[in-house]
Amino acid sequence: MTTVLGHNQYGKAETRVVRITRDGDTHHVRDLNVSVALSGDLDDVHYHGDNTKVLTTDTTKNTVYAFAQDGGIASPEEFALRLARHFTGSQPAITSARIRIEEYGWSRTGETGHSFVRDGGEIRTAQIRLDGAGCEVVAGLRGLVVLNSTGSEFRGFVKDPWTTLPESRDRVLATEVEARWRYGRHDGDGEPDWDAVHRRSRAALLDAFADTYSYSLQQTLYAMGSRVVDAGPEVDEIRLSMPNKHHFLVDLAPFGVANPTDTGAVYFAADRPYGLIEGTVLRDGAPARLPTD
Amino acid sequence: MTTVLGHNQYGKAETRVVRITRDGDTHHVRDLNVSVALSGDLDDVHYHGDNTKVLTTDTTKNTVYAFAQDGGIASPEEFALRLARHFTGSQPAITSARIRIEEYGWSRTGETGHSFVRDGGEIRTAQIRLDGAGCEVVAGLRGLVVLNSTGSEFRGFVKDPWTTLPESRDRVLATEVEARWRYGRHDGDGEPDWDAVHRRSRAALLDAFADTYSYSLQQTLYAMGSRVVDAGPEVDEIRLSMPNKHHFLVDLAPFGVANPTDTGAVYFAADRPYGLIEGTVLRDGAPARLPTD
Amino acid sequence: MTTVLGHNQYGKAETRVVRITRDGDTHHVRDLNVSVALSGDLDDVHYHGDNTKVLTTDTTKNTVYAFAQDGGIASPEEFALRLARHFTGSQPAITSARIRIEEYGWSRTGETGHSFVRDGGEIRTAQIRLDGAGCEVVAGLRGLVVLNSTGSEFRGFVKDPWTTLPESRDRVLATEVEARWRYGRHDGDGEPDWDAVHRRSRAALLDAFADTYSYSLQQTLYAMGSRVVDAGPEVDEIRLSMPNKHHFLVDLAPFGVANPTDTGAVYFAADRPYGLIEGTVLRDGAPARLPTD
Amino acid sequence: MTTVLGHNQYGKAETRVVRITRDGDTHHVRDLNVSVALSGDLDDVHYHGDNTKVLTTDTTKNTVYAFAQDGGIASPEEFALRLARHFTGSQPAITSARIRIEEYGWSRTGETGHSFVRDGGEIRTAQIRLDGAGCEVVAGLRGLVVLNSTGSEFRGFVKDPWTTLPESRDRVLATEVEARWRYGRHDGDGEPDWDAVHRRSRAALLDAFADTYSYSLQQTLYAMGSRVVDAGPEVDEIRLSMPNKHHFLVDLAPFGVANPTDTGAVYFAADRPYGLIEGTVLRDGAPARLPTD
Repeated sequence: MTTVLGHNQYGKAETRVVRITRDGDTHHVRDLNVSVALSGDLDDVHYHGDNTKVLTTDTTKNTVYAFAQDGGIASPEEFALRLARHFTGSQPAITSARIRIEEYGWSRTGETGHSFVRDGGEIRTAQIRLDGAGCEVVAGLRGLVVLNSTGSEFRGFVKDPWTTLPESRDRVLATEVEARWRYGRHDGDGEPDWDAVHRRSRAALLDAFADTYSYSLQQTLYAMGSRVVDAGPEVDEIRLSMPNKHHFLVDLAPFGVANPTDTGAVYFAADRPYGLIEGTVLRDGAPARLPTD
Repeated sequence: MTTVLGHNQYGKAETRVVRITRDGDTHHVRDLNVSVALSGDLDDVHYHGDNTKVLTTDTTKNTVYAFAQDGGIASPEEFALRLARHFTGSQPAITSARIRIEEYGWSRTGETGHSFVRDGGEIRTAQIRLDGAGCEVVAGLRGLVVLNSTGSEFRGFVKDPWTTLPESRDRVLATEVEARWRYGRHDGDGEPDWDAVHRRSRAALLDAFADTYSYSLQQTLYAMGSRVVDAGPEVDEIRLSMPNKHHFLVDLAPFGVANPTDTGAVYFAADRPYGLIEGTVLRDGAPARLPTD
Repeated sequence: MTTVLGHNQYGKAETRVVRITRDGDTHHVRDLNVSVALSGDLDDVHYHGDNTKVLTTDTTKNTVYAFAQDGGIASPEEFALRLARHFTGSQPAITSARIRIEEYGWSRTGETGHSFVRDGGEIRTAQIRLDGAGCEVVAGLRGLVVLNSTGSEFRGFVKDPWTTLPESRDRVLATEVEARWRYGRHDGDGEPDWDAVHRRSRAALLDAFADTYSYSLQQTLYAMGSRVVDAGPEVDEIRLSMPNKHHFLVDLAPFGVANPTDTGAVYFAADRPYGLIEGTVLRDGAPARLPTD
Repeated sequence: MTTVLGHNQYGKAETRVVRITRDGDTHHVRDLNVSVALSGDLDDVHYHGDNTKVLTTDTTKNTVYAFAQDGGIASPEEFALRLARHFTGSQPAITSARIRIEEYGWSRTGETGHSFVRDGGEIRTAQIRLDGAGCEVVAGLRGLVVLNSTGSEFRGFVKDPWTTLPESRDRVLATEVEARWRYGRHDGDGEPDWDAVHRRSRAALLDAFADTYSYSLQQTLYAMGSRVVDAGPEVDEIRLSMPNKHHFLVDLAPFGVANPTDTGAVYFAADRPYGLIEGTVLRDGAPARLPTD
């Protein structure tokens, strides 16, 4: 044999589970997309097609549905933890479980108590990784699109022979925030209030984006990440990925039309290419564990 | 010649224009995607490649930007009207213009007056068609996802040899609303308050969806369309396209778990296939003009 | 009642059916996405939620699967015809059926006879509309992306005050073809060889695109449509929708680099906005029936 | 300060560059999507908004275009290497560059020498990472969809209380292959023939998929990865991500229709959820460097 098996994992991805809870006439919705990935003693199935130790992906899907009813969904993080403990605790061959969840929000409409409008765009995320070394919880969001129509400049950068970009003292700054924050290790009691920390972190991202007079998107990114870590003791590390959604001032001079930013201007919202700024902010002294690409 | 030219149109599609307006420290954003389609005396370019009467699509794009600054964007409908009148009024060969606009909403965040979060998912639409017969205005929305977690049944339907669906007395009813409503003809003065009618129509859709105890999605569709027409004198016709976003009750019996709807159940949110219900509601006596597929 | 019901239709959309046929060790795949839309005497369900005449969308899905096995799939057109005749023939309330099909191609790989690679991108389409007036067959394709790296110019167009586009004597011409061609009415015997006409029409589109020295995309569109109609007696009308996938010559002069088209140049492939050219070509004397937007 | 900056990178993502090369009347196309990510001494811009060491993302885009003309694009890997060496070699603050490229294929059509059809679906990928430790080259593909209509079973798996899946002796096996293979380190002379190894690796994936009688998708994955490594000396490691594109046999018994696999059956092609199988195959003794999620 000239080759050997390296890291591997498997499971059912994107199980779409909706849990309705009725509190009299007032209903509650949790709408999740759950992806299970299991690892362990799985050499035989890869080398020989021997399925003796394989819990099927169909079974992991069934388990998601059964647990959603039997125990409910208190939060994506709690539900993911419960699933991870189940798979690693009940299958001797499975020594590691990673559960990823996306949550789609619903807001109430009308007076019925059972009518909802789906929140668009933004998605809440949670990931649990449970193995012999313990349990790691990473939560976050993506699809949060924000824009400052002033309060941003970009100057003083390197000019090399391929540089043509003019400096700007007043530009639109817009981005689509993807954030993943890592909680300090939790191996037992005293778990955070996951929903509350999520709300607080989201508010910190928005506030820092709005409050920061920006000299570069990197500076804004750091301010946003730092605000999340400083907002409480639970989060040790945050990774932000922020495309610069360019809004280019349109040159209307050929048509004899001024396009002044100080009274209100017209911009071309570009698709591609886009600047992509990624960075990690750590609590001082905390280890860096989030993947970097 | 064995073939002849039939209907044709051309123009720049999906020009992404963002107009910022400053009212002191309070800024306003209108974020549009504008598609222009022009028709007229264009045989020569199709038959012979003679561009003498062709206003280039690049020029239609430039015009969108120039008009967005010079005149501003009061509403998608007003902006589209202005563009349509310009193209048909300034180019002798162009006898018809259709302007389609998508608008993306932004909500304020923070205290700055210039910070915004993009509304996700739902898109506002407007279309103007201007030709020798007059001007037709069609407005609407898409991406509005709604769900009733009870108040819906489905029974009494045809049973043929291919029918296996059980009847249901309590199901989840969810759909993604696409609506297009046609205004009565406006050939001059006294245009509606486009933004106000849009808000009112959207509210009517939501209210009717929540209020209607549903025996079928067709019935709900008709109730929603009817509510929009009845809400005021402006709208003569509305076309709704509503996929049935199926939420199937999961059978947990193999695992010894009950899944009762009356106390709160677990559902599988399916992607495809999906029922698709489409229908038009007309003000009594109004002509049917909206396309049906 | 101040409102009335207008045109309506319903059915199961996007039923994904794959039919494997075994000819000894040589297997064949037909991979379809089938959407059913039924119309007829359906006032009661819209006005009153009375489902007495409603064949459920679930049943239309079951029928697709049963017919795919019992009778097979000779071609998308033949399969759609059979379904349309079944629904209108077996349900008294259903007086019109429209069946839309997308087909995804698979090519053989390896020596097994049962191994396939999916053709990417391009999709074959077919639509049958069957009602009291007869049967209309529209076939086509979309996602066919083509490019000429020379043999295209664009000059002699209108210059108005918003025109800045320079004329070009040598540009890249690229588009993504969407074509729908309508067959002459077929109400009984002697149906065309659907697969053969599809192959022939696709080849005609490609050949005309490559062969035509282009002065405008409109001219190329007409040449392509005309070639399809002229290729045989079956097709009476074709509608083409062709976005101009702009490839802009990059200005490298600021870096002291020439970018000459005659020896080979560098282009920026733009996403949005894009010119969109749409047109219909008719056999001389044939009626225009394809929808124009 | 309670927080510190961790790993960060930035650059222009998704620069769409098309390079036409003319060899007389025979033209050649390379169509790339290039994403640049730079790292180094960038604390000042994150902490203080000081752009003194920031080469703008706009400049990285300009450089991509200039280098595509001046030097050409011999292959995605070669082009990425050249860019990475330029950025790290010309900017003292930049100590690491990662260049990611997607390539879209075009095939000739017609007789002109300058007419092309875009290959759909499948995308070729390449990534160069250059830093003080050397240069790592990872190439691959994604969007390669394959199917075996027999020669696959799935039996002998774990049955726990949540298992309902029946065993199968003849199922459809289909997947969409994403592969990334890592070349042994190359720090100078004697680079591989990138295009040739790409063709060879792709063929190895297809051949192994078709040839392997499959007892599980994991076994097929290992066989495919192993075949790529064994095909030559250049590749030390390959990571495969293969969703199980489920084709479920439809139960037609309620309609009195048999659906036997041995003569040809009807399947439902499901979207979500799907089994997701991921695994790495290493040349014996080679280090594992590819990221695992």
